[in-house]
Amino acid sequence: MSLKGGYFGKLLRINLTNRTSTVEDLDPAFLKKYVGGAMLGTKILYDETRPGIDALGEENKLIYTIGPLTGTDCPTASRMNIATKSPLTGAICNSLSGGFFPVEMKWAGWDVIIIEGKADEPVYILIKDDKVEIRKAEKYWGLNTFDTQNYLKEDLHDLNIRISCIGPAGENLSLLSSIANEARVCGRKGVGAVMGSKNLKAVAIRGSNKVPIADQEKFKAAIREQLHEFKESHIAYPVFSKTGSTCGIENASGLGFFPIKNWMDTGVVDVSDTLGSKVFLTQVQKGNPCYKCPIDCAKVRMVKKGRYAGISSEGPEFETVYSLGSTLGIYNSDFVIAADRLCDELGMDTIGAGVTIGMAMELYEKGILTDTEGLDLSWGNEEVVLQLLRMMAYKEGLGKLLSDGTRKFAQAIGNGADYYAMQVKGLEIPGYDVRGLKSHGLNMATSYTGADHNRGYAFQEIFGIPFPHAVERLAIEGKGALTKWNQDFCGTYDVVTLCEFPTQMALSGTAQRIVAGLLTGATGIDYTEEEVWELGDRLNNVCRMYNVREGFSRKDDYLPRRIQEEPIKEGLSKGEVISKEDNDFMLDEYYEVRGWDKNGIPTPGKLIELGLEDTIKDLPASN
Amino acid sequence: MSLKGGYFGKLLRINLTNRTSTVEDLDPAFLKKYVGGAMLGTKILYDETRPGIDALGEENKLIYTIGPLTGTDCPTASRMNIATKSPLTGAICNSLSGGFFPVEMKWAGWDVIIIEGKADEPVYILIKDDKVEIRKAEKYWGLNTFDTQNYLKEDLHDLNIRISCIGPAGENLSLLSSIANEARVCGRKGVGAVMGSKNLKAVAIRGSNKVPIADQEKFKAAIREQLHEFKESHIAYPVFSKTGSTCGIENASGLGFFPIKNWMDTGVVDVSDTLGSKVFLTQVQKGNPCYKCPIDCAKVRMVKKGRYAGISSEGPEFETVYSLGSTLGIYNSDFVIAADRLCDELGMDTIGAGVTIGMAMELYEKGILTDTEGLDLSWGNEEVVLQLLRMMAYKEGLGKLLSDGTRKFAQAIGNGADYYAMQVKGLEIPGYDVRGLKSHGLNMATSYTGADHNRGYAFQEIFGIPFPHAVERLAIEGKGALTKWNQDFCGTYDVVTLCEFPTQMALSGTAQRIVAGLLTGATGIDYTEEEVWELGDRLNNVCRMYNVREGFSRKDDYLPRRIQEEPIKEGLSKGEVISKEDNDFMLDEYYEVRGWDKNGIPTPGKLIELGLEDTIKDLPASN
Repeated sequence: MSLKGGYFGKLLRINLTNRTSTVEDLDPAFLKKYVGGAMLGTKILYDETRPGIDALGEENKLIYTIGPLTGTDCPTASRMNIATKSPLTGAICNSLSGGFFPVEMKWAGWDVIIIEGKADEPVYILIKDDKVEIRKAEKYWGLNTFDTQNYLKEDLHDLNIRISCIGPAGENLSLLSSIANEARVCGRKGVGAVMGSKNLKAVAIRGSNKVPIADQEKFKAAIREQLHEFKESHIAYPVFSKTGSTCGIENASGLGFFPIKNWMDTGVVDVSDTLGSKVFLTQVQKGNPCYKCPIDCAKVRMVKKGRYAGISSEGPEFETVYSLGSTLGIYNSDFVIAADRLCDELGMDTIGAGVTIGMAMELYEKGILTDTEGLDLSWGNEEVVLQLLRMMAYKEGLGKLLSDGTRKFAQAIGNGADYYAMQVKGLEIPGYDVRGLKSHGLNMATSYTGADHNRGYAFQEIFGIPFPHAVERLAIEGKGALTKWNQDFCGTYDVVTLCEFPTQMALSGTAQRIVAGLLTGATGIDYTEEEVWELGDRLNNVCRMYNVREGFSRKDDYLPRRIQEEPIKEGLSKGEVISKEDNDFMLDEYYEVRGWDKNGIPTPGKLIELGLEDTIKDLPASN
Repeated sequence: MSLKGGYFGKLLRINLTNRTSTVEDLDPAFLKKYVGGAMLGTKILYDETRPGIDALGEENKLIYTIGPLTGTDCPTASRMNIATKSPLTGAICNSLSGGFFPVEMKWAGWDVIIIEGKADEPVYILIKDDKVEIRKAEKYWGLNTFDTQNYLKEDLHDLNIRISCIGPAGENLSLLSSIANEARVCGRKGVGAVMGSKNLKAVAIRGSNKVPIADQEKFKAAIREQLHEFKESHIAYPVFSKTGSTCGIENASGLGFFPIKNWMDTGVVDVSDTLGSKVFLTQVQKGNPCYKCPIDCAKVRMVKKGRYAGISSEGPEFETVYSLGSTLGIYNSDFVIAADRLCDELGMDTIGAGVTIGMAMELYEKGILTDTEGLDLSWGNEEVVLQLLRMMAYKEGLGKLLSDGTRKFAQAIGNGADYYAMQVKGLEIPGYDVRGLKSHGLNMATSYTGADHNRGYAFQEIFGIPFPHAVERLAIEGKGALTKWNQDFCGTYDVVTLCEFPTQMALSGTAQRIVAGLLTGATGIDYTEEEVWELGDRLNNVCRMYNVREGFSRKDDYLPRRIQEEPIKEGLSKGEVISKEDNDFMLDEYYEVRGWDKNGIPTPGKLIELGLEDTIKDLPASN
């Protein structure tokens, strides 16, 4: 087997301890099986690291991967993945991002970049095609992500050199820190802290290679079909390209699953008129699409007047409207834009940061958090939120207590605080009150990264899209299979690497066929629809095995007690919970359809079926 | 006479009302006489506009000029001037800036760009060599200067396209608004509001022409001599290239002329340990020199920890340490960096904005300003300063009252408030308590732009540099001649256009000879040392005539009453004033040496001597 297209077949390994870089050939059969993105990165991390390593220690690695479609003419394929052991969850972290870094990485000639070891001083990595330099970053250390990127581009005399960097939050090892790839972000699971722990401020990359395409005709035909699907969609262009992901807010709020005040008051407040997409539409300043994306969901929004006038941000996304808005009792789109910008500057996950502050506000109201150093943590206090975000990035005072997310915050507080920590596996739950969205709840419970909406987005429940079949969002039965379907569907996209957003909106049963066409056309390796489907399944299993090796099992697949015990207060999801019994019922269904045992451990048979027999050795002894 | 080098001989005229651009030839004899920079711009504005126009009306013009050395290999020559009628003072405004815009303007082939008229919607101007476009700027309108520049560069796909733009302050016509030329600023006299009044958000420019040099050997020899002077200086490299303009703070504070609390407490507080250059030195992150500047006084400074951690700014300059520090009773370098950055983002003059807030703080303390909308304007209140800066840029509430500077603020308040307005001709006085610097005081009183340190910097008094002779800073006698010398010296540099900073530090009597060599070498027009000296004299006279035509005379050349009446409280300048009598004595001396009459009006003889006979028609009837 040889590589005919889609890949360069090259892996770049950069060791920061020794300050060396080496080039390795990638085995074509290995690429055919693990393809790219989240799966390729996870598999390499799995093979190259031992279980139990300190995620912020020298042994952990940052693995950048892209896919065979990245850097080609295929739309929405400028995606990359960073795989690492998450310091926030202890589980595998796959964190994806769009933008321009991915295509530049591909054009530089690399399918994989592994960053390992730890520099003894602040450095950045400069990659121009096959030329790699590790340079001092003293003069950028401390700067926010915007200044870092701007100064690096100026100093390197190149607007189009693409930069992946951390801000102060990552430098200070906050577990809520992100990695900024210009206007796009690998946002969650503490990836920024891993970069910071290596004394790595940034990676700057520039490439000049053309990606070979094995079968241009087949490839172009698949692209035409892909564009046709976008065009036919009633959501992609008519809605999504105008409002971006905020399009879901009215729907979520109207159906009563948009969380209010740390999930305490879900359904009580309808945010349609204050935080709805129509409000954010009035604040759109300009577009800023990822490379080769015809949809351009990313919008630069700006506050037009008042206290935050002139502050602009690329976003905010749906999730941020929740985490820096409704869950804090703040119903002000201006503030959400300002706080979104601040998080981006600090290099901090908007979801994790906001949800942790929301939890602190509830603890404050309930008298569980008493020593706030004079800060008034009342719901809706915008000023204190801005203060806390800064304090969290710098680990100052109360900020230090919040800087590692809800789970560690709850542990530090004790006194029953964990009830108010809206997280699974340590990862804060995004803006869907899953008491009203059972499959999405099961996804949050079982997603290999923790409570992650993007790893198995239940669009059937959230948007009522009847594909592969109509779904009752409040029903418990059948959600095991649906969740697997969604996780494998999203997983496929995370592997190949394509943006899930437009695809979810153009669903018509053609996705796998189109992806098969794109992959086959680009690489010259024949992929069937079934093989494409299997990519998502394989991804979810190799990630699960990473976590199993770390000690994860069924016990880690439960939603927080509030979701199990406390019904939604008002609205169209009123009275809903996902009880312990519901959670168990859905887990049983889910494990069965996944081919996992009752404890959530993949069976040897399933692993063999997916070609993952080399992981069988890591199954717990009792299996 | 024909042009052999240094010039392209071309003027670009852009009319925003008609959306047209035209090219005009510049007469070589006209260029020989008015050369470039401040003089060329003023002369064109003088000739093309009538007296009494509304500075924010359609008749006013923005005239960008550079000089014959700009864009050549001559160091420190990347300077430009914007000439316009100042809406803040009603006098001529020359506002200079370094950076990269000037060289790009030259390389685009233009010695002069006149922007006239008014667009009927927000626009920006895109100039690539001789291609000129007026484009819609709706999507940039409202953005701060940093975002504007970044997005424009991204959208135009060009890192090296150079941008001159306004922020919210200019859009909202604050008379304290500036024009940002990337990291450099045309900062004062309300230039930003003139740009805003034309609905012009930005000028983006890119050039590809090489500047012709008439006599390379002569030119290179002059450059060698210039670089030798820098090298020989005890200040340029050893001090200035490390600390930038903050190097003067310890000296000013130690000698008791660094103003404290709106000049109320000058000499009472020594700021050496809190705001001195040594403090700012610890905050230097990186350099960022203007084009071809070997000295690199511009430093990016960053706050390392605490409340403002991670905020960086290019600067602050000496003046800003005063205006956003000591005169507000704030002795915190971190805050000065943060407030400097905010002003740059808003597009606001740090001097004017800070001094106006300082005045408000004193009026608040004295009970003259009572309605502050709940804002606590106590000395040292950092939070309220940040709030006010924003409110001024957006003309909100109390901010509206302060947004047009001290003079208009005093007029609005009445009740003796004008005593506390530290301004001349409406322009706020920079950070030198001139009660302890008599020539610098006379310069502030007589400078054609209002209280402007850069139009006649008295380095003999400020730094004790004995050139052209040693000077007693507290003496009144002889300051007329010294002030003329300094104004003509600085004026020469504003005309040719060279940066004054390194020159003032390399003074050894060679400046005019070197400039003559540079000009002659570049242009092929023979300039003698005497002719170079005359440039500064001619500049000061043509500008004075602009002001005379607007009704200015001796009556406008007085320092504020506080300086005349209230002695400095403590320190090495204790007890000093510049009394009305001192002011008059110095004016008499000054007018005489200038060849002006007792009323400060140039005599016809003087105008003829300088070749300005065409302005004689504008002398007041009584002359």
